[in-house]
Amino acid sequence: MGGRGGRGILAAPRPAGPITEPTSMKTRLSPVAPSPSLPAVHRRQWLAGSAGALAAAGIGGWHGEAAAEAAAAGKPLPDYVAWKDASSLIVHSSNTLETRRAAFGTSGITPAERLYVRNNLPPPAAAIVADRDAWELAVEGVKSPRRLTLAQLKGLGLESVATVLQCSGNGRGYFPSKPSGTPWTVGAAGCVVWSGVPVRAVAEALGGVADGLPFMTGTGGEPLPEAVDPKSAVVERSLPIKALDDALLAWEMNGAPIPLAHGGPLRLIVPGYQGVNNIKYIKRLAFTAAESDAKIMSHGYRITPAGGTPDPSQPSVLEMNVKSWINSPQAGPGPLSAGLVLIQGVAFSGGGSAVKRVEVSTDGGRTWRDARFFGPDLGRFAWRQFVLQARLPAGEHLLVSRATDTAGRVQPEQRLENLHGYNNNSWVDHGVKLVLA
Amino acid sequence: MGGRGGRGILAAPRPAGPITEPTSMKTRLSPVAPSPSLPAVHRRQWLAGSAGALAAAGIGGWHGEAAAEAAAAGKPLPDYVAWKDASSLIVHSSNTLETRRAAFGTSGITPAERLYVRNNLPPPAAAIVADRDAWELAVEGVKSPRRLTLAQLKGLGLESVATVLQCSGNGRGYFPSKPSGTPWTVGAAGCVVWSGVPVRAVAEALGGVADGLPFMTGTGGEPLPEAVDPKSAVVERSLPIKALDDALLAWEMNGAPIPLAHGGPLRLIVPGYQGVNNIKYIKRLAFTAAESDAKIMSHGYRITPAGGTPDPSQPSVLEMNVKSWINSPQAGPGPLSAGLVLIQGVAFSGGGSAVKRVEVSTDGGRTWRDARFFGPDLGRFAWRQFVLQARLPAGEHLLVSRATDTAGRVQPEQRLENLHGYNNNSWVDHGVKLVLA
Repeated sequence: MGGRGGRGILAAPRPAGPITEPTSMKTRLSPVAPSPSLPAVHRRQWLAGSAGALAAAGIGGWHGEAAAEAAAAGKPLPDYVAWKDASSLIVHSSNTLETRRAAFGTSGITPAERLYVRNNLPPPAAAIVADRDAWELAVEGVKSPRRLTLAQLKGLGLESVATVLQCSGNGRGYFPSKPSGTPWTVGAAGCVVWSGVPVRAVAEALGGVADGLPFMTGTGGEPLPEAVDPKSAVVERSLPIKALDDALLAWEMNGAPIPLAHGGPLRLIVPGYQGVNNIKYIKRLAFTAAESDAKIMSHGYRITPAGGTPDPSQPSVLEMNVKSWINSPQAGPGPLSAGLVLIQGVAFSGGGSAVKRVEVSTDGGRTWRDARFFGPDLGRFAWRQFVLQARLPAGEHLLVSRATDTAGRVQPEQRLENLHGYNNNSWVDHGVKLVLA
Repeated sequence: MGGRGGRGILAAPRPAGPITEPTSMKTRLSPVAPSPSLPAVHRRQWLAGSAGALAAAGIGGWHGEAAAEAAAAGKPLPDYVAWKDASSLIVHSSNTLETRRAAFGTSGITPAERLYVRNNLPPPAAAIVADRDAWELAVEGVKSPRRLTLAQLKGLGLESVATVLQCSGNGRGYFPSKPSGTPWTVGAAGCVVWSGVPVRAVAEALGGVADGLPFMTGTGGEPLPEAVDPKSAVVERSLPIKALDDALLAWEMNGAPIPLAHGGPLRLIVPGYQGVNNIKYIKRLAFTAAESDAKIMSHGYRITPAGGTPDPSQPSVLEMNVKSWINSPQAGPGPLSAGLVLIQGVAFSGGGSAVKRVEVSTDGGRTWRDARFFGPDLGRFAWRQFVLQARLPAGEHLLVSRATDTAGRVQPEQRLENLHGYNNNSWVDHGVKLVLA
């Protein structure tokens, strides 16, 4: 066949030229400092699989992910999530586990073993997932209210949707005001596929939503601590009834029954809304005339001015906002493409809008270039992965990303200050520093 | 707010009416018999999570999945896949594990713990995934052939693609001729997301493919048995060079580094091609003048006429063909929708064509109705999930599905007979019998 065809295809591989150490081994990466003096964080690598190496690297001096990773080093996984991949997670507490920035992978879907956990109450006993189909949900505020078992729900319809699941406190670690609560950086988020029955199909099977009920209220099945007012502890959230359009009562996550830690046997999924609204172990779904008066609704998860006091008149944490961050700069092999760096991350929005553009800057936001989306488009509620190849000289580079959604909303430079550190989508906060030798 | 708004949203759920046992508890489901006397298979349920119950049901008399499930009951997982979900798998042998029909889930992506395994040789020692980035690939048949480490490959590009991975012997269990080899029914297949570098980007970085080399040949890194001719054992496959267009050198599967059992640290992924062509532990990628003379290429995986002898002139097992099957009939709750059954399954094609239509018949193929696709569209190399809601009376129903792809190819009624039982996409073979009480 001519050309080099004379070489037998079973011949031993010919000796290759000398192999230069890839530039990736020399990368230095750290969060961009929101405050003056940020020590450089030295990391050998920044990709899935190398998470273990990060904890070992000399990290410190800042209250964000570096400090969190250092503090979490060696903390074991709680029993109920013993099946998770410890090297992918930062254990803040038994109810708060964060995915390492290096552990998101590049497949679009976050594996269950790497997905963050944030429980407002300790999860129920594992007995509730022993006979999943027997789980009961009370449906109220429909023409024919009744209890339905999970087995019955499974007969009413089937849909599957990929959504970003994100704690509204994700990014709290970047607030210089150090709000109380877990100092999440980027890892209180993931993108997963849920399967279940559309809430609309359930409501229709029960005669439809009764008239004049503008809220959809979900109640979690966590056992409540004794000796406290149940309303002060119950996980119960009310959403505007338009959330019904996309909501799912889900029994499956990423192709398997939802693990207890993630709300199995049955979870309310409200695509586009912050995590707390996706009620775990849902035991009651009610269309209601008013918002719940449970404390987690009336005073919790409110956008309270810094220095203020939470009250029900303040905006609640509902739909997510447009956001992106960078997960993995990675340098190319020296002799083939010296200075070439692949900058990769994720971008998403809320309110039913997909992300349509991501720009990346390697100089802290002075100049921008469009990144390329890659991988399957999992729909408007999922995140998109982006990548940009850049040729960078030795030295320090401040990498930031800025997303725009289909509604034209642009990720802002600055966070909106608030008492509890919710809804941080500042692009400058989420930047990373890359040091090339 | 009117209506039923007077009910306090924290009131105890109102007592529901008497709950009739859902019809799903009475379903009876079994493979459709290709041969005369098929005993009815009694199954309480047919959904993810209930796989354990299937093995316990009284099954027998046929060489297909029923017999396989019975035979596999109690066989432990081999050590190298001890991390898998045993209840989702049929263990045929240490190198052949099949996903149960009930365990595919309805999320589109097959979780790693449930994905089938088919090795032509035992996998290499786990040491090769201890330092993944050090894995070396020899690239030949390019202008500048050389060895590249995985770390170097990671710098050359990044893409992510969802593909159906399917053993070409999937469906062999339905051949009445009982070909030698594992009697897979539907479970030697899955749909997973791979991330890696496009082969084209690697070739371009090395000066491009040398002239006149019409094949892309991949060689696996399995240790070869001693005292045999290496060519009789090595896993080496050659594909027409057009496969280059979509091929990936992948290091990640479903968001995590590829497990050893699935070809990590580095696997050649050729979207649209049968599983054997997706070389695990790839150690050499060569553009070649001729097909490999390894036995697995010259005589293995050939479409040999029944009763014939394999030889290199016969068609090789390359691109997949259009195919679908049903995974889960599921009955609705009696009092709400008596006789309503959700019929759900998966459909895909090969050769770069997506599936565009699936019809479902509940009378063994006499009449057909279009099913609805649901869930994210993961691209033309992935499978689509379909669902059809049907109202069925008591009695026996033969459920079959028939897919059509974007090239207009229609899944055939009958299998193409061949010596080894490859490429079975017969819709009648893949049908299931549903018995409603």
